[in-house]
Amino acid sequence: MANYIEPKVLKGFRDILPQAEMARRGLTEKIEGTFRSFGFVPIDTPALEYADILLGKGGGETEKQIYRFKDNGERDVALRFDLTVPFARFVALHREELTFPFKRYHIGKVWRGENTQRGRYREFTQCDFDIIGSDSPACDFEILLLIRSALQNLGLDITIHVNHRGLFNRFLSHIGQSDKSADVLRAVDKLGKTGEDETLKSLTELTGEGNARKIFEYISAGGNFTETLARITELSGGPSEETERLLLIRQFMIEAANNNSDPFILAPSITRGLDYYTGVVFETFLNELPGIGSICSGGRYDNLAGLYSKSNDSISGVGSSIGLDRLIAALESLGKPPAAAGCAAAIACINPEHSGSYQALAQRLRQEGIPCEVFTDFCGEKQLVKQFIHAEKKGMRYVLIPGGNLSGGMITLRDLPARQNIELSVEDAIGILLDNK
Amino acid sequence: MANYIEPKVLKGFRDILPQAEMARRGLTEKIEGTFRSFGFVPIDTPALEYADILLGKGGGETEKQIYRFKDNGERDVALRFDLTVPFARFVALHREELTFPFKRYHIGKVWRGENTQRGRYREFTQCDFDIIGSDSPACDFEILLLIRSALQNLGLDITIHVNHRGLFNRFLSHIGQSDKSADVLRAVDKLGKTGEDETLKSLTELTGEGNARKIFEYISAGGNFTETLARITELSGGPSEETERLLLIRQFMIEAANNNSDPFILAPSITRGLDYYTGVVFETFLNELPGIGSICSGGRYDNLAGLYSKSNDSISGVGSSIGLDRLIAALESLGKPPAAAGCAAAIACINPEHSGSYQALAQRLRQEGIPCEVFTDFCGEKQLVKQFIHAEKKGMRYVLIPGGNLSGGMITLRDLPARQNIELSVEDAIGILLDNK
Repeated sequence: MANYIEPKVLKGFRDILPQAEMARRGLTEKIEGTFRSFGFVPIDTPALEYADILLGKGGGETEKQIYRFKDNGERDVALRFDLTVPFARFVALHREELTFPFKRYHIGKVWRGENTQRGRYREFTQCDFDIIGSDSPACDFEILLLIRSALQNLGLDITIHVNHRGLFNRFLSHIGQSDKSADVLRAVDKLGKTGEDETLKSLTELTGEGNARKIFEYISAGGNFTETLARITELSGGPSEETERLLLIRQFMIEAANNNSDPFILAPSITRGLDYYTGVVFETFLNELPGIGSICSGGRYDNLAGLYSKSNDSISGVGSSIGLDRLIAALESLGKPPAAAGCAAAIACINPEHSGSYQALAQRLRQEGIPCEVFTDFCGEKQLVKQFIHAEKKGMRYVLIPGGNLSGGMITLRDLPARQNIELSVEDAIGILLDNK
Repeated sequence: MANYIEPKVLKGFRDILPQAEMARRGLTEKIEGTFRSFGFVPIDTPALEYADILLGKGGGETEKQIYRFKDNGERDVALRFDLTVPFARFVALHREELTFPFKRYHIGKVWRGENTQRGRYREFTQCDFDIIGSDSPACDFEILLLIRSALQNLGLDITIHVNHRGLFNRFLSHIGQSDKSADVLRAVDKLGKTGEDETLKSLTELTGEGNARKIFEYISAGGNFTETLARITELSGGPSEETERLLLIRQFMIEAANNNSDPFILAPSITRGLDYYTGVVFETFLNELPGIGSICSGGRYDNLAGLYSKSNDSISGVGSSIGLDRLIAALESLGKPPAAAGCAAAIACINPEHSGSYQALAQRLRQEGIPCEVFTDFCGEKQLVKQFIHAEKKGMRYVLIPGGNLSGGMITLRDLPARQNIELSVEDAIGILLDNK
């Protein structure tokens, strides 16, 4: 076989087959519907950008994972590895064209040459949403509410852990450890992964045993939102700008509570390891599957576009990101895979020369909003069983079998699961299909 | 500014701003809705593949335009430059998992390092749809009908030019020129671009003056479908498999005619320059803007997955592709840009401390299906004008101004274009917003 090329995909990449792709699109549409209902608008940016823009101050892990190369014009380019950096560049470039506060979402693919051993993909979809150009606590709250709505609209039972990184820093300053802030944040961020003993050990090495115990007291779980807030207010040296903001956000949560569902807890151990968060931070867990980690995280940052901006006006904002692939994997292991709304009916082929009238019949159904496939193979009465099997494989419920004289208006409706044929008018068939949509 | 990086995008790439992105999504959704109504299902494939798979027998223009590089594992990889080659690879790889005939669509980005001078982009969106695993003329017809439906559902006035490449080859054989088939097809394909004189000159060089005149007679325009079919049937040596197929497809067109609209013409000069078409071929033009060329082209091919398949069973099919970017550009120059369905109402901020109850009000609207943005800045009665301007910039019609006591149930509805305030109950406001959706 001189001309044969083995069909395969790159390690860490994958094809999405129709059932899965329909489910993905259904899920994305629902999430997008919630974003739009809050007045968030979509943008898009290129998959490929100048490498120096994507890497920014860069270096480290990112540099190792990025797909970077020289294009045909010898430009140093790379595939985007997240949607945050392109958004920062986007805002700097289009500042004059945007209206602030600007509420945008962006659903798109990103690429990272990550280790694929832990079931990670090298191409995956991110779903980011941010409000930028406002420092209002109402915006912090809106992002939290949007997370709640988007995930509850998918029928998920969630808990959203909220914290304020600035308050944590105030506490560190209060105990004289503010110079170690970044390292302490990183150590605390690993609590969930490495366990209490390991974290306490790291903290002791960093700050000494007494301080490590104080930090542990600060980040310990338990108590409702108000109690925890009172405790960390005291531990951080009394009421402050940060505790006032948390109080206000808590008040908003209560006022906008929906059917008494209150998925919010104050979790002082949530710090988000990344450097750029400065205010409120949050993580979201599935109550039925907390072990998979946060499916939606984010926080408030000070100066999104600073690196790409000559202006001294910083643009602060608050935003979050849903890990779509992790969410879908979670829904599957919960036995709640997103539904794929396929086509429920087909028109059988009795005589291929009548394909024109079969399509005319299909169009009547489509005009009523009934998706409808026209079969073109295994034609003839004697091969109807093959057409039924084909329809069942596609997950359809009905096959319409046109009579010899379609203009007479009578057809046979095959109910596949019931293994029943009913002779009826086209209008009545449409009625049944609409009732069973 | 030691840390400043100039924000810019690569030549041939672009950001999509919210209004444009909403319009793109609206357009794509409509097209996708038509696909789904025909029982076509979506798939997805990786952006990045092994270069040898994408290039196939390859070479030539493609090789020069492709984004190809070595990844971190020293694999020779490339960004996909169309959706056809990945589909062929997909079918070969998943043959056992698919049910044939398989009707799929795929909307995705592709990348080509093309010359950007003629307004071409290096990143653009393709929208492919195919039926594979059936040789039925009913499938040829279904693809034609799907083109008609998808574009007419967008409100476009179109003409679809149909031809049969096999019949053209039969004609060439009839006049003893079949050995020059590929070159003649290419010369004829350029007719629209280079004009009649140039084409006749090329054909004369290829086949001699007498044959060139015969070819010109064959490809000449004019006459209705039936007349033209009779003419080319005779010129190709009488009735054949190919003319029978065209006759049948024409019969289907008449039987499935919708409100007497008949956008189909038989155009013997349409050959589609590419090598892989073997049967019916077609191109689609906008009647109001024919000059921009075909916005949706395709045809029937013999063996889609042959290069990636060890099996001798070839998978034939028929498919087409809509050039989304060209279509959007066309709609814009026709003054019919796709509509961007934004958010029509905002809730004004009077007192930022009431943001919780503003969100609660917004949720009542969202539950009624009314998208609604909550404003968080320029708070207070005195700054309402700023909030009105902000809403107008966003293309909104209404601003809801909550009273001091929201639980009383009365609010003020600002009709921005009318510059009117109406005091009314929340229920009445919802009624007005629903009526004006």
